[in-house]
Amino acid sequence: MSRFFSEKYSSLTPYTPGEQPQDMKYVKLNTNESPFPTSQKAVDAAAEAAKRLQLYSDPEARALTAKFCEVFGFERDEVIFTNGSDEVLNFAFMAFCDETHGAVFPNISYGFYPVFAELNRVPYTELPLRHDFTIDVDAYCGVGKTIFIANPNAPTGIALKRAEIEKILRSNPNNVVVIDEAYVDFGAESCLPLVRTYDNLLVAQTFSKSRSMAGARLGFGVGNPALIRDLNTIKYSTNPYNVNAMTMAAGIGVLSDEAYTQRNCQAIQENRAFTVDALRSMGFAVTDSVANFIFIRHIMVDGETIYRKLKERGVLVRHFTKPAICDYNRVTIGTREQMQILLDTLRDILKEGV
Amino acid sequence: MSRFFSEKYSSLTPYTPGEQPQDMKYVKLNTNESPFPTSQKAVDAAAEAAKRLQLYSDPEARALTAKFCEVFGFERDEVIFTNGSDEVLNFAFMAFCDETHGAVFPNISYGFYPVFAELNRVPYTELPLRHDFTIDVDAYCGVGKTIFIANPNAPTGIALKRAEIEKILRSNPNNVVVIDEAYVDFGAESCLPLVRTYDNLLVAQTFSKSRSMAGARLGFGVGNPALIRDLNTIKYSTNPYNVNAMTMAAGIGVLSDEAYTQRNCQAIQENRAFTVDALRSMGFAVTDSVANFIFIRHIMVDGETIYRKLKERGVLVRHFTKPAICDYNRVTIGTREQMQILLDTLRDILKEGV
Repeated sequence: MSRFFSEKYSSLTPYTPGEQPQDMKYVKLNTNESPFPTSQKAVDAAAEAAKRLQLYSDPEARALTAKFCEVFGFERDEVIFTNGSDEVLNFAFMAFCDETHGAVFPNISYGFYPVFAELNRVPYTELPLRHDFTIDVDAYCGVGKTIFIANPNAPTGIALKRAEIEKILRSNPNNVVVIDEAYVDFGAESCLPLVRTYDNLLVAQTFSKSRSMAGARLGFGVGNPALIRDLNTIKYSTNPYNVNAMTMAAGIGVLSDEAYTQRNCQAIQENRAFTVDALRSMGFAVTDSVANFIFIRHIMVDGETIYRKLKERGVLVRHFTKPAICDYNRVTIGTREQMQILLDTLRDILKEGV
Repeated sequence: MSRFFSEKYSSLTPYTPGEQPQDMKYVKLNTNESPFPTSQKAVDAAAEAAKRLQLYSDPEARALTAKFCEVFGFERDEVIFTNGSDEVLNFAFMAFCDETHGAVFPNISYGFYPVFAELNRVPYTELPLRHDFTIDVDAYCGVGKTIFIANPNAPTGIALKRAEIEKILRSNPNNVVVIDEAYVDFGAESCLPLVRTYDNLLVAQTFSKSRSMAGARLGFGVGNPALIRDLNTIKYSTNPYNVNAMTMAAGIGVLSDEAYTQRNCQAIQENRAFTVDALRSMGFAVTDSVANFIFIRHIMVDGETIYRKLKERGVLVRHFTKPAICDYNRVTIGTREQMQILLDTLRDILKEGV
């Protein structure tokens, strides 16, 4: 750090994105990207928008919002678009937490929550998952803090039912509950239908996963208009032109192609079932994931070894060093061919007798 | 605001972007966009990148950084790319200012500086411009705060000489001096050549203006590697994938077409000279702008009337209500044809005898 860096951030530990090694071509199963190309309608719309980049993008994202409302059945004042869902999550930490109003989230979850809390100097509590990695719903009831829950949770892929989240919402009427649904389209229940019932609910989603647009950076938050106004106050005090024109156009394009998105989500679920079955028969413990990734541990071989040996053989998965989960690896569900390579490679590694 | 909004932001007044009315087609001279299309090389590169959006953009922006270093003659650890230059400015407020280390900037300048200060709860001082709208360099010498200066300044277009900024840099060795060069390519002296001499200098620039890429959202900061590391700490704690893949590709494309950029900048300067001459002959006071906009006041007609009557006639300019400058309008320099429409329309308005 430079001698000019503010002391308030001197102990800040930034988020570590998944590695992107360039030394060889990997089967990349480490950042939960979609293995399917972006909808051609999105690609075409983005290419068309690229011809008019000399003009600012619309800070109100009116065209994208209109399309979104048509597809999702919301009103324009119930949604905010952001530069990836990380941005709407950070906005929520800014808007709904402070020194006197802390945050709470699971101790094993998206690694960015504690970073956002530190960045915004928000006191936070990490509530332990149960031994089976499920979220202890009762621990969040009446907790009196701003709640952040990834549903399905990462890196486990395990989801709460909507009714369980309703219990949390009802018992915390004076606190915002942020449900981070980055992975919801692969088999979990979305809380979007609850937005008009609970004025303390903010649902965050992303176009990165089910809509194959990680490289475009498009996320959104849906909630009561008053919550969305607050988030817009933060946005217009941070970066009013936060979403670029090509990404907005791509967003409209992909929302015109929902059947394609649904087919891809279906394929991921089939490949996940196939992969989980095969892994269990090979001695892996696998969580009941409803996400586009699985969380796996072998009964005999430690997680770091599996991560390293897979990488040596050209298969990238995500390994975390946190003690509670260091025996595990998070593996993105890809195409059937990629899953076959993963399984064959794991068989080779296990056969070697590590 | 909702009942959940943090009290710390209860008095926050967000930035107001230039209006984007959709009721008719305007000659749009209100947001300092380029009238020239984006380089075809940028458009093509962006369209190509749109085909691979399922993968995350590179958080390290390695390819764009390499191209930038080739063109600008810096090393990769001396630059950071951001989602527009607003983002690097906000990062600088976050990294180099805090409750005990305030900010200072001109009282008439980019309207976002006080918003960033409020957002980050940074105490700030707005130093008055001289009566001729020039910056009083001596007032910044030894000021002991983090300094933000737009050069050329907005909305006046008046620039400091590099030697004047050096005086500020030398007299504030323990404070970061941020020079916001959004408009530098239209005739001012850049401070980029000073970066290796002064470890307290951060230069912010944007691809929005001279490179016709406002809609792509691409800005950057150049400074000592220690400063850039600090800004990266903020970036990786905020939004590691802050620049999308299409924009990075467009950035590489436009940097491969510097002759086009230079021709456009030359054309803006010629159109500016032509417009300023004509306006002065019509009774307008015009600041000595070296930016892609001019700041004009008529000796007889108030600024709000001119703004309003121009808008009624389909010409959008930017009017500010701040008392010190409410007699003025900021007018973007467009094509020769757009400038001719502006001049003809103003002549009509004046002839009417308001």
